[in-house]
Amino acid sequence: MLIEIDFNSDEAFYMQIRNQVILNIAYGYLAPGETLPSVRQLAEDAGINMHTVNKAYSVLKQEGYVKIDRRRGAMIDIDYDRMKVLMELKSELRLVIAKSQCKKINREDLHALIDEIYDEKMEE
Amino acid sequence: MLIEIDFNSDEAFYMQIRNQVILNIAYGYLAPGETLPSVRQLAEDAGINMHTVNKAYSVLKQEGYVKIDRRRGAMIDIDYDRMKVLMELKSELRLVIAKSQCKKINREDLHALIDEIYDEKMEE
Repeated sequence: MLIEIDFNSDEAFYMQIRNQVILNIAYGYLAPGETLPSVRQLAEDAGINMHTVNKAYSVLKQEGYVKIDRRRGAMIDIDYDRMKVLMELKSELRLVIAKSQCKKINREDLHALIDEIYDEKMEE
Repeated sequence: MLIEIDFNSDEAFYMQIRNQVILNIAYGYLAPGETLPSVRQLAEDAGINMHTVNKAYSVLKQEGYVKIDRRRGAMIDIDYDRMKVLMELKSELRLVIAKSQCKKINREDLHALIDEIYDEKMEE
């Protein structure tokens, strides 16, 4: 797994790490049971503060992607609680839809975008 | 328009403001040409730093929801550049889909969620 920080991005570094870990899991580069780099290691490799990596790992834990083991560090461990996930996705999608409405992108456009992404990059 | 900061939320305050402005526009409570509260006013009302409000307004400007007028302050002014919006939405949806895949939510579930939100709350 390769994590790269874009120092020019507006996005907070810990969010960049969190998002990249999620993408790595989704693409199958990281499987349940595998461990993430140690906080110290990732901080060194990416050229960022250990505190930032810690924050990213805590968010991933809180959101149900990893568990933190005292000895092994952060390990992929997915919380599949369907109701919880659907509620979270719904609140995210609510904002995506609000943005779309502001910008005159309609329901069909959004459905089409989703299909486009699935057809391009991913397998179900 | 009412903006309320949730001091217990993990979400950065400026993002809370930005999201609420977007929702207000989407729901029709804020129309193009209307102005947002002054930075000082909103900071006072919400009990937060003026710097935070400034940051929210800059993000809204950068994302094409407001323009900043020297005399009138922040005014709703939507950038409808369709290609740009679709690209931004696509990159957001890519992450939503990655999350879904990690958590075993499939393509049909996402389409259903989108329809649910449209049918519940909004008009196209």
